[in-house]
Amino acid sequence: MNKTKPTGPIPPGYHAIDGELAIGGRKTSALVAEHGSPLFVYTRNGLDARMAQLRAAMPANLDIHYAMKANPFRPLLQHMLGLADGIDIASGGELRMALDAGAAPENISFAGPGKRDEELEQAIQAGVTINLESPGECDRALKIGADNDKTPQLAIRVNPDFDLKGSGMKMGGGPKPFGMDIELVAPVAKRILDAGADWRGFHIFAGSQALKAEAIIETQAQTLELAARLATAIGRPPEQVNLGGGFGIPYFPGDTPLDIVKIGRALSEQFKQLPDILSSTKFAVELGRYLVGEAGVYLTRIVDRKESQGQVFLVTDGGLHHQLAASGNFGTVVRRNYPAAIASKFESEPAETASIVGCLCTPLDRLSDNAAMPKADVGDIVAIFCAGAYGASASPANFLGQGPAEELLID
Amino acid sequence: MNKTKPTGPIPPGYHAIDGELAIGGRKTSALVAEHGSPLFVYTRNGLDARMAQLRAAMPANLDIHYAMKANPFRPLLQHMLGLADGIDIASGGELRMALDAGAAPENISFAGPGKRDEELEQAIQAGVTINLESPGECDRALKIGADNDKTPQLAIRVNPDFDLKGSGMKMGGGPKPFGMDIELVAPVAKRILDAGADWRGFHIFAGSQALKAEAIIETQAQTLELAARLATAIGRPPEQVNLGGGFGIPYFPGDTPLDIVKIGRALSEQFKQLPDILSSTKFAVELGRYLVGEAGVYLTRIVDRKESQGQVFLVTDGGLHHQLAASGNFGTVVRRNYPAAIASKFESEPAETASIVGCLCTPLDRLSDNAAMPKADVGDIVAIFCAGAYGASASPANFLGQGPAEELLID
Repeated sequence: MNKTKPTGPIPPGYHAIDGELAIGGRKTSALVAEHGSPLFVYTRNGLDARMAQLRAAMPANLDIHYAMKANPFRPLLQHMLGLADGIDIASGGELRMALDAGAAPENISFAGPGKRDEELEQAIQAGVTINLESPGECDRALKIGADNDKTPQLAIRVNPDFDLKGSGMKMGGGPKPFGMDIELVAPVAKRILDAGADWRGFHIFAGSQALKAEAIIETQAQTLELAARLATAIGRPPEQVNLGGGFGIPYFPGDTPLDIVKIGRALSEQFKQLPDILSSTKFAVELGRYLVGEAGVYLTRIVDRKESQGQVFLVTDGGLHHQLAASGNFGTVVRRNYPAAIASKFESEPAETASIVGCLCTPLDRLSDNAAMPKADVGDIVAIFCAGAYGASASPANFLGQGPAEELLID
Repeated sequence: MNKTKPTGPIPPGYHAIDGELAIGGRKTSALVAEHGSPLFVYTRNGLDARMAQLRAAMPANLDIHYAMKANPFRPLLQHMLGLADGIDIASGGELRMALDAGAAPENISFAGPGKRDEELEQAIQAGVTINLESPGECDRALKIGADNDKTPQLAIRVNPDFDLKGSGMKMGGGPKPFGMDIELVAPVAKRILDAGADWRGFHIFAGSQALKAEAIIETQAQTLELAARLATAIGRPPEQVNLGGGFGIPYFPGDTPLDIVKIGRALSEQFKQLPDILSSTKFAVELGRYLVGEAGVYLTRIVDRKESQGQVFLVTDGGLHHQLAASGNFGTVVRRNYPAAIASKFESEPAETASIVGCLCTPLDRLSDNAAMPKADVGDIVAIFCAGAYGASASPANFLGQGPAEELLID
């Protein structure tokens, strides 16, 4: 017999109607009947609730930015424009998407280590803030501004001398392709000011996907201290400081939700003790996954039920071409199960150990490995949760000629 | 100082012109100037040479199929139609691409664990061979054939009771979502024959990406033995047997090319000793990566050169959105370097240790980690080799709003 493996925790807010998983008050069978399968479903209520919780927990004067790389689906992005104080982009393509969705250029900031000249030019023409990643990028941006007779809006992305402990992805605390080492920051700020460009402040991003409040609290304190240190070296207060993100969501067995109330309290305390040079600075956090991840579910229909040497395989019409991270093939070393369920039997008791696999002809295409499930058959619908971030746009949609899944935003 | 890590072996057939990497006789700088960057370049000569070597090594009566999942780029697929004896597809999307490119339906076969009813219907209407993955799929195919008044062409995909030793991906030798366990094969064949459908034979695929000739020879012998055993149980000779693939290419430091001459000799010997029940059977191998992988190069331009805490980062305008596997995030546990070079300084001696990263704002986006490279700067072109298979179509092209790379087939 194969060993049963646990699945990650199903996020709050998902309930059953007539024994079936409902999303935004609609049964999954109805959603799939109307919109086909595979299908990503995101809910406005889920997005709203998450933002409301966060606003309630965080200091009132903290800006909350949406990092659209987590999910650029246009209706969702448009909804997030109404909720967030800013949009953080990572490419010229995202700039176009953000402007098309109606974002105000003054609320957009652009980070990314490999910005092309065309992308810098688009950003400068549009008037968005560029988070400079290197002295070389600073020179290119200043030249493009001068050539186009436009004043660039330039912030400096800093490679911090600390990392976010316990984070899924470290983006500081060592040699990094992101941002500038600390000793480069003041000279580059001087270059910006001397050239007559607008120096907007700092972008300091130490890591992402942390679940321990204490680690984020420590990193935010270090970030504020670093911002003050750098501002003092420059001799000017920064207009804004992006404190980065790092707020994780539970994906895997044993993961527990981040205590944002604790983080908010600590940040409020820190804001009360700011040094003078930061007293008029606007602070922001940059969140993607935390804002949208749990508000999305990936639905896929079972097209075959197979038993092979005593193991049950539920073969779906979806797979890693839509949910690469859930398959364990994107940034994870040891594969663990995302939260998953038989949506069409959401209230049924587990009756067997089954693996949920995708339709691709590769052993990598496994959505859930040997988990306890109610007995499911062809036509049943599988739900993979935590599909709101880094799902559709972060997966190889055209692999094996499959093409993208439908996406849907409902109330 | 950071430790220098080796890169994989550059495939044969790539040379310099004026010190620069040339592909198909054209300098990479000229290719990028004309077609932009990032750019996948595939060569007809590379494809032709590989197929010619393989034909020379293999028994003359062995069919060589192209598994188009490796690279479905239309001009390349069309070229492969002229070289291969058959096209193996893995979805309804690939079926449309193969037919559009001019493939004859009788030369197409369709394997994949999660075929939808619509895909089975398309395949049956077109008259392509379906490799059945389960008894349930057999029933669905027979019903769809009857409903459409068409005789389905049905082969049985077998889950072999052995695996391909040393293969990068095992697809047999245990409980698997692919194919049918051995004891199911004869009853399903009987069902096909009783229903009046055409039983075409077997598809037996034990693994992929092996570099040891001995392992492939052993697997092919086991496959022939299994085919004979199953045919005897059915009481009929199979018209065709797909022996699977498994022929790997060297990607990583220390990898050596597969000895295909040895494999061909052994297979010829095995063909001389076939049992009577296989004496009129047509045999095929199904290869993707081996046929096209080394004939492609990914070119990307350096947009920034950074030093962070003593380490050099060459930041390119490409990345894992085009070359997911090279970034170490697709089916690999320990990240190792693909073959990589500074194309614009192909003949220059190594002068420093540098990491080649992509333009995405994630630490996952690393194309080459701390390798010895000639000193490169903004504007230089990086080449990642072995990019002909599982590159463009197996990567999340739209991640961070980037979009797909250009692809180009030249002589």
